[in-house]
Amino acid sequence: MFTFFKVKKVAEVLEEITKFPMLPEESLGLKEALGRYLAKDILAKEDLPPFSRATMDGYAVYARDTFGARESEPVILKIKGEIAMGEVPSFSLASGEAARIATGGMLPEGADAVVMLEYTEEEKGIIEVKRPVAPYENVIFKGEDFEKGTIVFPAGIKITPAVIGVLSGLGITQVEVGQRPKVGILSTGDELVLPEKELPLGKIRDINSYTLYSASLESGAIPTLYGIVPDVKEKLFVKVEKAIQENDVLLISGGSSVGTRDFTLEAISRLPEAELICHGVAVKPGKPTILGQVGSKAIFGLPGQVASALLIFYIMVRPLLLHMQGAKGEHLFLRKIMAYAARNIPSTPGREDYVRVKLSFSEKGVIALPILKKSGLISSMAEAHGFLRIPENSEGIYEGELAEVFLLP
Amino acid sequence: MFTFFKVKKVAEVLEEITKFPMLPEESLGLKEALGRYLAKDILAKEDLPPFSRATMDGYAVYARDTFGARESEPVILKIKGEIAMGEVPSFSLASGEAARIATGGMLPEGADAVVMLEYTEEEKGIIEVKRPVAPYENVIFKGEDFEKGTIVFPAGIKITPAVIGVLSGLGITQVEVGQRPKVGILSTGDELVLPEKELPLGKIRDINSYTLYSASLESGAIPTLYGIVPDVKEKLFVKVEKAIQENDVLLISGGSSVGTRDFTLEAISRLPEAELICHGVAVKPGKPTILGQVGSKAIFGLPGQVASALLIFYIMVRPLLLHMQGAKGEHLFLRKIMAYAARNIPSTPGREDYVRVKLSFSEKGVIALPILKKSGLISSMAEAHGFLRIPENSEGIYEGELAEVFLLP
Repeated sequence: MFTFFKVKKVAEVLEEITKFPMLPEESLGLKEALGRYLAKDILAKEDLPPFSRATMDGYAVYARDTFGARESEPVILKIKGEIAMGEVPSFSLASGEAARIATGGMLPEGADAVVMLEYTEEEKGIIEVKRPVAPYENVIFKGEDFEKGTIVFPAGIKITPAVIGVLSGLGITQVEVGQRPKVGILSTGDELVLPEKELPLGKIRDINSYTLYSASLESGAIPTLYGIVPDVKEKLFVKVEKAIQENDVLLISGGSSVGTRDFTLEAISRLPEAELICHGVAVKPGKPTILGQVGSKAIFGLPGQVASALLIFYIMVRPLLLHMQGAKGEHLFLRKIMAYAARNIPSTPGREDYVRVKLSFSEKGVIALPILKKSGLISSMAEAHGFLRIPENSEGIYEGELAEVFLLP
Repeated sequence: MFTFFKVKKVAEVLEEITKFPMLPEESLGLKEALGRYLAKDILAKEDLPPFSRATMDGYAVYARDTFGARESEPVILKIKGEIAMGEVPSFSLASGEAARIATGGMLPEGADAVVMLEYTEEEKGIIEVKRPVAPYENVIFKGEDFEKGTIVFPAGIKITPAVIGVLSGLGITQVEVGQRPKVGILSTGDELVLPEKELPLGKIRDINSYTLYSASLESGAIPTLYGIVPDVKEKLFVKVEKAIQENDVLLISGGSSVGTRDFTLEAISRLPEAELICHGVAVKPGKPTILGQVGSKAIFGLPGQVASALLIFYIMVRPLLLHMQGAKGEHLFLRKIMAYAARNIPSTPGREDYVRVKLSFSEKGVIALPILKKSGLISSMAEAHGFLRIPENSEGIYEGELAEVFLLP
């Protein structure tokens, strides 16, 4: 049905991933929208602010009137009235006049600046202005934040508290976002038992299921656990068929036994419309990763070792889950920083290497200390702050060299 | 009831914050525990791995037997049998013997290393070993990850997918975590209308409610909106009394009118057992921040301007919400990196300054570009990647100087 050993580079796989169709949109209120991704550009349907506002407590004035004002020679202005908070001024200002105004108040017609309270003195219907203000000083103009009709946010960005703030300021309380993908999670291996069960000698607990469940949840997906399948071909096929029907993405994390990976490959190939995107990725850890496409759905065969499976999750599965939800560009990836390697980290050209690191600070900046433990140990997994990336064509990173580090969420 | 104008430093307020009592614990399964904080140290109740395991496909051997082996002079070992995945070997190895084993298989008694498949050749019941292995090579020993009885994780850490992985590996599927704090959110100001309503001229939309709602949600809290209260003292008192009864933390974001801040202060002081922790913080923006304690509960008076309110949320409210949930140490704060300032940023000694920045990358490392816009504008709020901190005793950061940047979630 398809050729085997189709090894791809990480960048090639990521390119394929962004070709998967996005999920349909849904409309959410602002209380539910946090962490989702905008499915459409957002246009301002009104000016923000809706009118010119004071940004300081003081007096609305015609700026030109105050030119030349100083402590010893204050400018005298007549107080025309006071502007009540939240109301339209009932008067306009002429030259020589001023109006009391508080932060946020609406400027009366004729005023183009606000003199701060501390530079004035009020007495019997007049004020003394002791410093000049420039036109537009201490004022935010109508539409200065956003003009009606302009793009406020492009599609594909993540909805953060600040984004929600801007949307509510513009009166946009309903947004279109991509739906959350459903993710099925399946562990394979005769040696596995459920973590909640008694552990017979010779067996080990299934670590991948809960790990990938939580990582999927953190990536905005709706995960479902399909339990453990023993290394029996037909049992795997039946489970895979069911799980891919019920989900948008299926994660099979390979039992460690030699044959299991081939079973995963065969299970994918037996599905109608199956297409193999890659069988093997030029990356360490995670080389045996498989990605297949079944219609609009994706099946990943992940490494059996949990730390490797989690790495592949962060660099490939998570971008797919976010892409399906509508995320674009940098929003698909873990946040990147730069850090100085605390020691030499050798690598082999021809593949990307990802090394778990702890971060610390020195006068020089951020320092990344690789966590060097046997690859099968899981204790190092939870200690890491991020992954240091060694590019494909590099023979390694020298101590003191700057490297890219992707921060774990 | 208490003295006014009790200006504190950020560090002093943070110290007070960690004196608030933590919320009671609750017990959660691993599916629900993501993003919560461990209320107790976690001890390993068994060894991980539970037995010595192969980390490569190959042959279990007695390492000493292979010493001196080379391509031209292989060592010959007798195949004693095969170790089925997930089962206890039915035999032990003597010197001169080997057993087929796959990654994850249990080492038979007598074996202390695994020779990788690629360095062997099998024929009629024997193998040729072409390279020596050292004792313990390609093996993870019983308890090498975690020994029974040792501390796996200390109380106060955040439960990430990797932490969940380690817990499930150890058969710990139920964890004690601190409960999520309930947060009431109240906006004050005669000029405010709900974002979903028609906007009369002179009024503006309430931006703070949804912003603080989402930020609370992101900080693990359970937020409730109490709407908008006009600048009428008695109305505020009634709402505050109700909201603090129903929540652990109350956020009142000040209307911009001059009197409102005093109302908030008075509202706090009228509550029984009220204590003022600070009235004013030496920080920019956010100087007028108020923090009061009412029994085990906290009331914040936040700035009216949303970008300032959100900053104070991240540097003070969020640490309190996380502390109440059981977070400790670095887990209380936004993630910190170091970045080079893209331009001079002046500051005034005697207060901490936080400047919104966009991050980019150069050969030198991470560059922080301050977003310089009028302080009343909200468009800059959603553009920021983080906050650059200018310490209290500094007169500013020079272009090219390294500074601390706190990353927005």
